[in-house]
Amino acid sequence: MSRFLDKRYKGLTPYVPGEQPQDKKYIKLNTNESPFEASPKVVNAINSDEVKKLYLYNDPTAKVLRETIANYYGVALDNVAVSNGSDEILAFAFNAFCGKNTPMVCPVVSYGFYPVFCEMFSIPYVAVDMKDDLSIDLEKFYDVDGNVTIANPNAQTGTLLSVNEIEELLKKKKDNVVIVDEAYIDFGGESCLPLIKKYDNLLVVRTFSKSRNMAGARLGFAIGSEELIKDVEKMKYSFNPYNVNRLTQIAGIEAIKDDEYFKLCTNYVRDVREYTVNKLKELGCEVIPSKANFVLAKLNGISGEDLYKRLKDEGVLVRFLGDALLSDYVRITIGKREMMDTLVAKIIDIKRGL
Amino acid sequence: MSRFLDKRYKGLTPYVPGEQPQDKKYIKLNTNESPFEASPKVVNAINSDEVKKLYLYNDPTAKVLRETIANYYGVALDNVAVSNGSDEILAFAFNAFCGKNTPMVCPVVSYGFYPVFCEMFSIPYVAVDMKDDLSIDLEKFYDVDGNVTIANPNAQTGTLLSVNEIEELLKKKKDNVVIVDEAYIDFGGESCLPLIKKYDNLLVVRTFSKSRNMAGARLGFAIGSEELIKDVEKMKYSFNPYNVNRLTQIAGIEAIKDDEYFKLCTNYVRDVREYTVNKLKELGCEVIPSKANFVLAKLNGISGEDLYKRLKDEGVLVRFLGDALLSDYVRITIGKREMMDTLVAKIIDIKRGL
Repeated sequence: MSRFLDKRYKGLTPYVPGEQPQDKKYIKLNTNESPFEASPKVVNAINSDEVKKLYLYNDPTAKVLRETIANYYGVALDNVAVSNGSDEILAFAFNAFCGKNTPMVCPVVSYGFYPVFCEMFSIPYVAVDMKDDLSIDLEKFYDVDGNVTIANPNAQTGTLLSVNEIEELLKKKKDNVVIVDEAYIDFGGESCLPLIKKYDNLLVVRTFSKSRNMAGARLGFAIGSEELIKDVEKMKYSFNPYNVNRLTQIAGIEAIKDDEYFKLCTNYVRDVREYTVNKLKELGCEVIPSKANFVLAKLNGISGEDLYKRLKDEGVLVRFLGDALLSDYVRITIGKREMMDTLVAKIIDIKRGL
Repeated sequence: MSRFLDKRYKGLTPYVPGEQPQDKKYIKLNTNESPFEASPKVVNAINSDEVKKLYLYNDPTAKVLRETIANYYGVALDNVAVSNGSDEILAFAFNAFCGKNTPMVCPVVSYGFYPVFCEMFSIPYVAVDMKDDLSIDLEKFYDVDGNVTIANPNAQTGTLLSVNEIEELLKKKKDNVVIVDEAYIDFGGESCLPLIKKYDNLLVVRTFSKSRNMAGARLGFAIGSEELIKDVEKMKYSFNPYNVNRLTQIAGIEAIKDDEYFKLCTNYVRDVREYTVNKLKELGCEVIPSKANFVLAKLNGISGEDLYKRLKDEGVLVRFLGDALLSDYVRITIGKREMMDTLVAKIIDIKRGL
């Protein structure tokens, strides 16, 4: 820390991304990436002619990309804002709608970035307890003052809320913004997107990192009422108007166009998730019911941290989340079936040695 | 604006990027892009194998890119932070080092984004008057309370401060951060980068948008003391850790490696700038002495706004900046020589009609 850092940041604890060790090659099941390469349509479109054109600024309004997204989801252009990964649009939204008198309310187990955004923007952060089964206790949110952010399926756990439950929350919190982070919705959940036509307080956030196989392209977007989107874009134009670069705009357009590939990849992940859950249960693991591209699992007789370390020694990288409520668990990304078979075999070995 | 926007943002006026009209094809001299395509090394490196890999997250530390930059500029890895365009790293720095009791002090004529960042982050903004010739009046900064940001060469005007002048400012403001935005330094200015070893309050900001021919790739960086860089990175990891995507990291590495192309392009722009200035002066324009890839020029008998409009009608896009002090001027990006010849011919026509 320098002697110049403003005093409000002296205690700031940044987000810690999942590890990316370079010491050897791992079976990487720790950051919820897709196991499938970017769509062939994306690969074809990013050709040398497009790379040459990098000397020109990208369209700051990202119009064609936003139109493509809008058409796909059946909304208007002005219902869509895009960003450099969904982290950025979450940051814009937290900053736009919260303030020192408007807290952000989140489940205590969720995406670890939410409290960091609050610290970054001096927003009071309120953490709401989970149910005993680690699912979100939505009724507890009804009477807490402030805006709400919920990941659905929830980050870390993968549990899903129904559209009816989300709608109930929107009604109960009608004078606050409710952000629904649907990063993992394409792996078996029902989206609450249709509700944006009915509720002006709903902002749905999405990413191309998981179900669209492009974590490394950095593309996220939000869908909401025209007014909410205008506010989010106001943040963008006051922070980084050219936030989505030329090649990522092209990649996003092509990824949306390749719906067949999208369905193939997400269906595969759903099937392998069910396969993996069955295998893990067969060998005695407890698994939280997940509708995401990961599962949270524990093995009796070993802590989450030790299981993570033992698997890492064996060349399989999963994520230990450190959270007090999750100390028994590891989070396992769903990869290709052969990757999951290796994981299961390693856990069987570890169990034998307990 | 929605009913949910936090009240501190009700009066926020975002930055307005240079226009990108789609109605017809213009000779585009309005956003200070390079007239040269991205380096052939960049074009070669962004191949289909790399595009396929977009399914994997980029390295959040951008280590290889930062090493490449560090080696090129003769500093250590920990002296370098990278960002999604230099706008982003400026935003991080403003936010890290300023606060409600620490203003940002800037020349009144400079990059239009500086006051916007201040409004965005609730930072008091202090604008310092220019000298009569529109150059920066550095002595006026010595006794103003707060951090300082100076573009050198200055945005909009292109005027250059010497390294000695910057050093004097660093001494006079030793208890504040001095940000020197060197977006345009490669077109004929002397960089103050060597001073970072001597002054812990200096942060130099650079971009790949202009001299490295990659405005559409979005890549900026800052060089400073290890402690300043740590603070800037603290912002990044609390906002958007994966801010520089996979392909932009590759593009940055390759652009730095292609030093020959870089020199060829920047030398060309310098030569055409001198050529253009002479032509403009010959036809009676007043031109502010510029060391950037643009010039600020006025033609007697016509306002800057009218000149801009007339040129636009003729298919040549320059920038009218709106600022009260610059109402007589248009800002003209230096393009290829034939583009400048067309511009000059159009101005001769316009002058004839006055």
